[in-house]
Amino acid sequence: MSHPRQGQVAVIFISEGSGADGDGYGAAAEAMAALVAEQPGFMGVDWVGGEDGREITISYWADDASALAWRAHPEHEKIRDRGRGEWLNRYDLMVGTIHRGHQWERD
Amino acid sequence: MSHPRQGQVAVIFISEGSGADGDGYGAAAEAMAALVAEQPGFMGVDWVGGEDGREITISYWADDASALAWRAHPEHEKIRDRGRGEWLNRYDLMVGTIHRGHQWERD
Repeated sequence: MSHPRQGQVAVIFISEGSGADGDGYGAAAEAMAALVAEQPGFMGVDWVGGEDGREITISYWADDASALAWRAHPEHEKIRDRGRGEWLNRYDLMVGTIHRGHQWERD
Repeated sequence: MSHPRQGQVAVIFISEGSGADGDGYGAAAEAMAALVAEQPGFMGVDWVGGEDGREITISYWADDASALAWRAHPEHEKIRDRGRGEWLNRYDLMVGTIHRGHQWERD
């Protein structure tokens, strides 16, 4: 089966919020969403957040080089430091390449 | 950076619920969670569900063959048919191989 994201690099970010400084976290998340969308090779993002402060964010990239460039972006680094300092209790980050998939939608 | 899931196959399932038959869906999700955990090659699962009925479920497999075997499991097929028939409005399924990552936890 083919899928529009076949060959793209997925960066899976699973986080557990600390509950601290909720407003600052929301503002930072919005700023990062705007900034990431401008990055070369950025192909899209999926996000779901639960009531318990757990979130899964998956960003999609044209290749690994563009995912690594976003990791090294100074603004992104600064926000990551604040995340570890204040907003998050833990996270799990995994990077993989999409090799198949399919989509379904009710008629 | 190494990560415990490096080399594992991740099956990313992003779904939007229809809101129909919520109890039946919950029972089916529990039954599938129990069944998937018994499958050869199953390595774990991450899940987050939002208040809007959107969910991201990521299951991890030792290799692609075990992920494909789960796809072909008769009970799983039956539940998928009910998902498309009743419980879901759309889904997006992507399969990839984890090649790097890292974990962080507050001290």
